[in-house]
Formats: sequence, structure tokens, C-alpha cells
Amino acid sequence: MRFNVDRWRGYGQGAFHDDLVAAFVVSVLLIPQSLAYALLAGLPPQAGLYASLLPLVAYAALGSSPAMGVGPVAVIALMVAQAIGDAPAGTTPHAAALVLAAEAGLMLALAGWLRLDALAALLSVPVLHGFETGAALSILLSQLPVLAGASAHGSNLPQVLQSWIGTQTPWVPLTALYGGVALAALWLSRRHAMRLLARWLSPRRAALLARLAPLVVLMLAMAVAAATNAGARGVELVGALPELAWGAVLPPLDPALWRAMLPSAALIALVTFVSSLVVAESLARRQGVRISPRRELAGLAAANLAAAVSAGMPVAGSFTRSVVNLDAGARTRMAGVFTAVLMGVAMWLLAEPLAVLPTAVLAATIIVAILAMFDWRPFGAAWRYDRVEGLLMAVVAALTLLAGVAWALGVGVAASIALLLRRTARPHVALIGRVPDTEHYRNVGRHDVQLIPGVVGMRIDESLLFVNARQLSDVVLQQLGRYPDTRRVVLLMSPVNRIDFSGLVALHALHDALAARDVRLDLSEVKGPVLDALHGGGWTRWFTGRVYLSHHQAMEDPRGSPDLR
Amino acid sequence: MRFNVDRWRGYGQGAFHDDLVAAFVVSVLLIPQSLAYALLAGLPPQAGLYASLLPLVAYAALGSSPAMGVGPVAVIALMVAQAIGDAPAGTTPHAAALVLAAEAGLMLALAGWLRLDALAALLSVPVLHGFETGAALSILLSQLPVLAGASAHGSNLPQVLQSWIGTQTPWVPLTALYGGVALAALWLSRRHAMRLLARWLSPRRAALLARLAPLVVLMLAMAVAAATNAGARGVELVGALPELAWGAVLPPLDPALWRAMLPSAALIALVTFVSSLVVAESLARRQGVRISPRRELAGLAAANLAAAVSAGMPVAGSFTRSVVNLDAGARTRMAGVFTAVLMGVAMWLLAEPLAVLPTAVLAATIIVAILAMFDWRPFGAAWRYDRVEGLLMAVVAALTLLAGVAWALGVGVAASIALLLRRTARPHVALIGRVPDTEHYRNVGRHDVQLIPGVVGMRIDESLLFVNARQLSDVVLQQLGRYPDTRRVVLLMSPVNRIDFSGLVALHALHDALAARDVRLDLSEVKGPVLDALHGGGWTRWFTGRVYLSHHQAMEDPRGSPDLR
Repeated sequence: MRFNVDRWRGYGQGAFHDDLVAAFVVSVLLIPQSLAYALLAGLPPQAGLYASLLPLVAYAALGSSPAMGVGPVAVIALMVAQAIGDAPAGTTPHAAALVLAAEAGLMLALAGWLRLDALAALLSVPVLHGFETGAALSILLSQLPVLAGASAHGSNLPQVLQSWIGTQTPWVPLTALYGGVALAALWLSRRHAMRLLARWLSPRRAALLARLAPLVVLMLAMAVAAATNAGARGVELVGALPELAWGAVLPPLDPALWRAMLPSAALIALVTFVSSLVVAESLARRQGVRISPRRELAGLAAANLAAAVSAGMPVAGSFTRSVVNLDAGARTRMAGVFTAVLMGVAMWLLAEPLAVLPTAVLAATIIVAILAMFDWRPFGAAWRYDRVEGLLMAVVAALTLLAGVAWALGVGVAASIALLLRRTARPHVALIGRVPDTEHYRNVGRHDVQLIPGVVGMRIDESLLFVNARQLSDVVLQQLGRYPDTRRVVLLMSPVNRIDFSGLVALHALHDALAARDVRLDLSEVKGPVLDALHGGGWTRWFTGRVYLSHHQAMEDPRGSPDLR
Repeated sequence: MRFNVDRWRGYGQGAFHDDLVAAFVVSVLLIPQSLAYALLAGLPPQAGLYASLLPLVAYAALGSSPAMGVGPVAVIALMVAQAIGDAPAGTTPHAAALVLAAEAGLMLALAGWLRLDALAALLSVPVLHGFETGAALSILLSQLPVLAGASAHGSNLPQVLQSWIGTQTPWVPLTALYGGVALAALWLSRRHAMRLLARWLSPRRAALLARLAPLVVLMLAMAVAAATNAGARGVELVGALPELAWGAVLPPLDPALWRAMLPSAALIALVTFVSSLVVAESLARRQGVRISPRRELAGLAAANLAAAVSAGMPVAGSFTRSVVNLDAGARTRMAGVFTAVLMGVAMWLLAEPLAVLPTAVLAATIIVAILAMFDWRPFGAAWRYDRVEGLLMAVVAALTLLAGVAWALGVGVAASIALLLRRTARPHVALIGRVPDTEHYRNVGRHDVQLIPGVVGMRIDESLLFVNARQLSDVVLQQLGRYPDTRRVVLLMSPVNRIDFSGLVALHALHDALAARDVRLDLSEVKGPVLDALHGGGWTRWFTGRVYLSHHQAMEDPRGSPDLR
């Protein structure tokens, strides 16, 4: 594990060239995005740039995904913006963001150490997609005032509306012009540049060149703004970046601040891990490789800790930049290292020109990136598959937009668990009979099957767990009411994946209730691990029935086949 | 439903006689217990007596269990004692208890109306038994100072110890003598009275007469205390019961008090419902009848609301008195009504003599009732069956004793759910092959089975849910690594009881990942409800494999049997 030197021995010139080209393409996207996400989070722009240097190297050292593009991402920036509101008075936003990165990094490291990668499972697809859609809508909303030059701000719908309605300057025409033109240029170049370029160039070169469009837009905006002295005309600019002084900006060791940031940091760590894991898995399926959730935890932990000690901001895996990285030909995690180097060079070259970049152009960058994130199809698919899950997805999206990230995720996770418990508590029960000419037994209500008088075959489609155990006797005795001359009940146990202690107690009670009616309880197709557990609990002391390998053996000849106990 | 007049038309003299005898026996037990549990809850003694009148009639009208003995119970009395500590300053304990009864009654009624009887499933066997054992220990502890005449009190271990160590009078010899003699008499009569009496009487009469022992002990204690003027010698007595004045004691409509009692009332409602349901179900199994959880909710709601408006205290079904009721021959819920009438008569006859009853004798009554409640065997059984569940039972018992009821139940429910999620998240996976000479397929690792080259049969022992969905592709592709020349994967779906939306997305991803490797994914033995759901989600748009009725058909002849889609 860790940084394996042997892995890199075969790193030849071909991979070097491919990784370098991919790194260049990713950097073009990362420069405006890192600045924009820092501003979205309410931080000074250089926080985004710094978060695009060391964290990328740290992830390359410990992470497992070959193509993942780590750095500032939109959804985490939104979470940082909301979390900063909880910081004690007198703390700068950047100090709070550094504490968030440090805490999220430490939690990710702890989760990796304790092998808690399974916690990612808490975010179901409806919750995650609803959250990401709601976050994208919130980000879009938060950027509209910036695009128009309004002095409004906020990170969810009520905040933005309230702030925009109450502001003195609802828009600045010249700023809005910069924002609108940049938005149109970025949007059109994204949709049409490749097709236009492909008339003169090979498809591969056209695709690469089209990806440079954001850089061209940025350069043009800076040139025009500098030539026309836009700042003096009321257009808000990024402003001069301060000198590189990493050592001076470390997360302050203020216990009150660390305590205040802790809940938000936990949510940021969870979303960082799950959203990055989804990206890494989707890339891995495309590349035919496997990734390790524990190494992802390690890589993301290292990246966030690196961001915390290098004046950055919380980072995660970016879906957009990862896909661009892979499409541009990235082969190994060295592409991430090259991206970091190129970002360093860019910061050195661009430090001065960036000062005259209008923030409305950065807002346009975010909006174009966000518009590509929207995917409404899962809402329809979830609704068609299961009304309740579709509703959950919509509710989580609405809560994210209206009440904020913490509420949305809290309600989403709690509702997912409640739904699982509720469904486990109400198992489907089927009386089963033999499908003619086979040894297969199915639901009497759905298939044309044969029954044996005096013997009831039943299937309860759930593990025997505390949430449903109490109903076991009731459900079986209800069936016996319909067949009063029953002498044997055979439970088909293939749907029973586990029996917990409450389930064992319920099975014992059912056994005794049937015995009191002179009915024998037999079991068939009990799975190995379940039978092991029953033996461990000493069930032979009370269980008087028989256990059959297959339901067919149980039904055919109760004495002709061996008892598996 | 409700009070069904026709049911009672057949109520003849035989049932009348049996119910009356049972009611008499139960009353003998209920008089000291109702006084004792009121004192245990920190309430005036008559609160227990009043809670043994109207609530019994209310339960008889709406409940469903023929033999359940409703009234004050030890565990609920302990919960009331702890809850009263949260009441705002200036509230009398009895006012707080009446609000608790009213709130618990309203919640039970609401739960019945919203069909939330499934919430009972939240208390697993380990949590419920751990809680009841811890509560019994706490009650025992709280009664020891009363038995010895110490002026110490408390409802959990730290409180009792602290109070006893700090008290000026750690014991009063004469009080301790009353307590000790009563304890010995009650204990010996419980163990030996029936055997002694059986020498001269028929077993049935001996059993009935033995049950009168508590009344004899009570009478003797009162006579001795009155004759020796025990009160003047420092023995604490029950004291004069105030005049019957129900109308004057109603739950006060103080919003702050209602708010403060709400969380405790919710726990009391949950424990009332679950513990009474367990009693009712255990009686029902013995009698061969069925009870209705929703009617139990209605009956318990009515009983608690009746207690709230008649100067009582929260009530529930008592296991001890229910068993006594059944053993004494109770046939219908009229036994409960007769018990209430007899209690009214007893209150009128005994109001004066009860004033001289030493409280130490009541403490002895509680201790004997509690000692019968202890059952340590489930601790061993749970530990042997599953270390984690055994540990949970012990932790819940310890928390009840050391930290109080709310903590114990909160931690217990949360841990049960976490355990369920954790196990669902890590399904058992088996490669399966054919058991020779059958159509049955089992785990390659456990059985001597036959495989078919190029076809992998697999069984994943869990429903496809959000907690495990993300691992699906990984688990299947890992098996493919061992059999690289695989052309078909057949998933045996009999353990899959549900597929939620996250599971559907994972199945889609697995299908596409296999298709990219030119491997076909087929399914066998998909259950009806699961197949219905897949069709509802429109899976035919992407699923290219086949669905087989039985795994055997799938393995034997991929083209010879019909596709069930």
C-alpha cells in the first residue's frame, strides 16, 4: 500500500507525455474554478489557488484513483460558506475554512484507520442525488447576484432573495455586461467549439483545443478590463493577490472555533468521501480498474490536511475535472502532480493580470460548470421505481435549497433508515406449492402450483430480525386458520439471510405455539451461516422438527432424507 | 370493534363466578402493590389506589386481552419517579404524574389512530430484557433504604448510594424489623404456603388460599403496628389517606409542565405499549387466542387517560398480576371490572387501618414482586447466540441502573438500528453449484457440488439496499477474477427480498460492467414483488439478460426455458 515505488518504475515516456498533456488541460479549467469556488465559499481568491497545489500532490501519494481531479469543488465550497456562518465572532472566514479542512482531514484519516469506509453507505442514491441537485441550484442562485454586480449574497434561496431585495444596488450594468458576455462565450464554446474546430483539425486535437476556451475567455476579459480601466467604472475585480506567505496562515488553535466547526466538518468529511468515491468508482468502471475505499479515505485525508497547512480550503474529487483529465489522456496519478506544478507556474505568471479579472466572469465560470451538473432523469426514474424514494429525492433537494445542507442531509439519512426499518418490519409472506414437473416451489397466489394436504409450505420474505420478529407467530398461525387440518408446517428459509436474538426468541415461541397445536415445525434450505448461528445458540435443546437441504426433499418424503441438524 | 355488546350476551353464570374469584385474588395482590408503586414513584399512596379503579374499567372497554391485569406497575413507577425530577419548580409530583399519564394516553391514542403499532418493534429483545432487568435492580435498590427505615431515596444506583451515605439515619432498628419480618413472611409464603396447604386442601383451593398470604401479612402488620403504637416509636407509616376528591386533582394545564414532561411521556408510552404487548401476547399464546396490537393501544390509551382524570398515575399491563389473574381462572375482561369494584370496596373498608401500615412492609411487597421478575437466563442465551447482542443486553441493563431509563432506551434503540445496518451492509456471498442428483444449488465452500465451466452461479445473501448496493459490482467482479473465462453470471435472487432505488442503480451498473466484459448477467428465482418493482422501474430498457423461474433451469439450458420478463 501507501506510496509504492515499484509501481512507478515502469513509468515511461509515453505515460509522462500523456499525463502532462492532461495536466495542462485540467489546469486551464482549474485556474478559474479554484478562484471562483474560493469566492463562492466566502474566502479570499488565493485560498482556491493554494488548495490546488499541495493537496493534489498529497492525494497522488496516498489515493487510489488514477484519474481523479482533486481540488476545490462547488458543493464543498457551498458547505464551507454555510459553515462559516457558525464561526465565533472575530474569526476570519479563511481561519474557519482552514479549521474545517483540518477537521475534515483528521476525520477522514480516523475513518480510514477504523475501517469506517462503510459509513459511505449512509448516503443512498436518492439522498445523494437530491442533495447534489439542491446544492447545484443553491450555487446557481448564489452566483446570479455576482453575475449582475449586485451587492447581494447568500448560500440558499431565502438568504439570496432577502439580500437581493434589500440591497441598494440590485445590478451594475457594466458588470452584468461582462458576466453576460462571458457566460454566453463559455456556454457556446462548450457546446460548439469542438464541432467548429473539427472542420480544420483532427477530432482529438479539436477536443483538446476546445478545452482551452475558458482560458481564452479569461484572458480576453482581463485584457478588456485592463484596457478600459473597468475597476474605476464600478466593475468589481478580483483584486491584487497577496504575497505567498503560507507559513503565516495556519489553522488557529482556538478550541471554541474547533468545537463550533466540528458538526459542519463531519458533514463535509462525509460528503467529500461519498461524492469523491462516486467519481472514483465511475472512472474505475470506465477504465476497468478497481479502487480501494480505504485508500480513497487516506488520499482525501492527506489532501485536506495539506490544504489546512498551506492556506487552502477543503478539497474533494471533482467530477467535471476528473472526466476532463481522463478524456485528455491521463494515465496515472502523476497527472495530479503535474497539475499542481502547472498551477504553481500559473500563479506566478498570472498573479498580476488576475487582479483585473472581473468577479462576474468567475461567476459565469461557476454557472457553466454547474449547468453541466444538473441531471433531472434520476428524479423521474426514482419516482417511477418507488414513489416514496422519488419523493425523498425531491424533498432532500428542496431542503438543500431552502433550509441548508445540514438539514437536508440529516433528514435524508434519517428518512432512508426509517424507510428501511419500515419495509423490513412488514415482510411479504407467501404460501408456496410445487411448480409441476420441477423441484421448485413458488407463491400459490402467482403460480399454478401443487399443494400437499396436511402440510403447509411457507416463505417469509425477510430475515428474522427484531423489527419483524414479533409478528412471526401471528403470520404463521393466521395461515393455519385457513388450513385447520395441518400437521406440519415447512418454512422455506432461503429468504432468511440472518436471525438475530429477537428472531431466535420468536422462532422458539412459534415452535412452542405449533407444538401446543400438535403441529410440527420443519425448516428447509436454511443457509450455512444461519444454521451455524442456530447451533451456536443451542437450539437443539428445544427444536423438535427437522431441517432439510431442499424444500423439495422436505415436502416429498419427510422420513426419506437426512436431517441436517 | 370497540365495546361489542353481542360479545357479552353469552356471558353466563359460570364465567361470572370464575371472573369474580380471579378478581378477588388479583385485588389481594393489587392493594399493597398499588400503594407501594405510588410510593416508589414518589407520589402519595392514594394515587396508586385511584389508578386501580377507573383505568381497569377503561381497559376492559377497549382493550383486547382477556386476562391482562392493568394498573400501576413497577417499571413505569420507576420511570415516573425519574421523570418527575424534570418538572419545573413549584409543581407537585402528583400533578406531574397526572400530566405524564395524560400525555402518554394521548400518544398511545395517536399511535393507534395512525396505525403506528409497528413502532413496538423498535425495542428488540436484548434492549427490552436488559432494560427490564436494570429497572428491577434499580427498584430493588430504591426500596432497600425504605425497608431499613433510612431517610435515603433515589431511583438509580448513584442517587441511592449518595443519599444513603450522606443520611443522618442510615437505619431505624424497629422499622427494619417490620421490613425484615414482612419480607421473610412474604417470601416463605410464596415458596411454601401452597405446599403446606395442599396437605389439607385440594390443590386448587390450596393455590387460591396461598394467594391470600399477602393480605394476611398486611393485616398482621397493621394490627401489630396499631397495638404497639409503632408510629410513636419512629416507624414510618403510610399515614391517613385524604378524602376522596377526584374532581379537585386534574392534570394542570400548564404549558411549561406539559413541555417538560413530553420526552419522558413518550418513553413511558413506548414502554407501556411494548411491555403490555409482550404480556398480552404471552397470555394469548397460553390461551390460544389472538390479540390485536391496535386494540391494545386503544385500551392502554383509555386506561391512562382515565388515570389522568381520576387522580391516578400512569398505568400499564402487569405481568405478575396478569398471570395470577389467568391462573385464578379469569375468563373475560369482566375480571378487570370486578377487580376495580373490589378495589373500591377495599378502599372504603381499609382507608382507616391502612394509615397505620409501616412503609417498610410495602417495600417488602415490592421486593418480593421484583425478585420474581429477575431472569438471568436470557443474558446467557443472548451471549451464546451472538456476543454483540449479549453485550448490548448487559450494557442496557447497566445504563438503566447507573444512568437512568432515558439513556438506556436511547442507546439501546440506536445500537439495535446501527447493528442491523452494519450487518445488512456486509452480506454473505456464496459461489453456488448443483447438489448432485437434485435441482438444488448450494455454497461451493460448504457442499460437494457440481459446477459448469464458463457459467458462474452466485448468491448474495441480502436484499439490494442502499447500505450495501455500492459493493455489488465489486463483489461480483472479484469472483470473475477467479474464473476469467466466464461468459455468463447467474445471480440466484431468492435471498433478495427487496431492491431499493440505490440497489436498482447498482444492478444497472453491474449489468453494464459485465456487458463491457462480454459477460451476460442472468437472474433466477426473482420473487414476484421484486420482479414487479423492476418492471415498474422500466428495467427492460437496459437489461439484456434473461430471468429464469428456477436456478436449475437457468444453469441447465439457457435457451430451453422461457424468459420470465
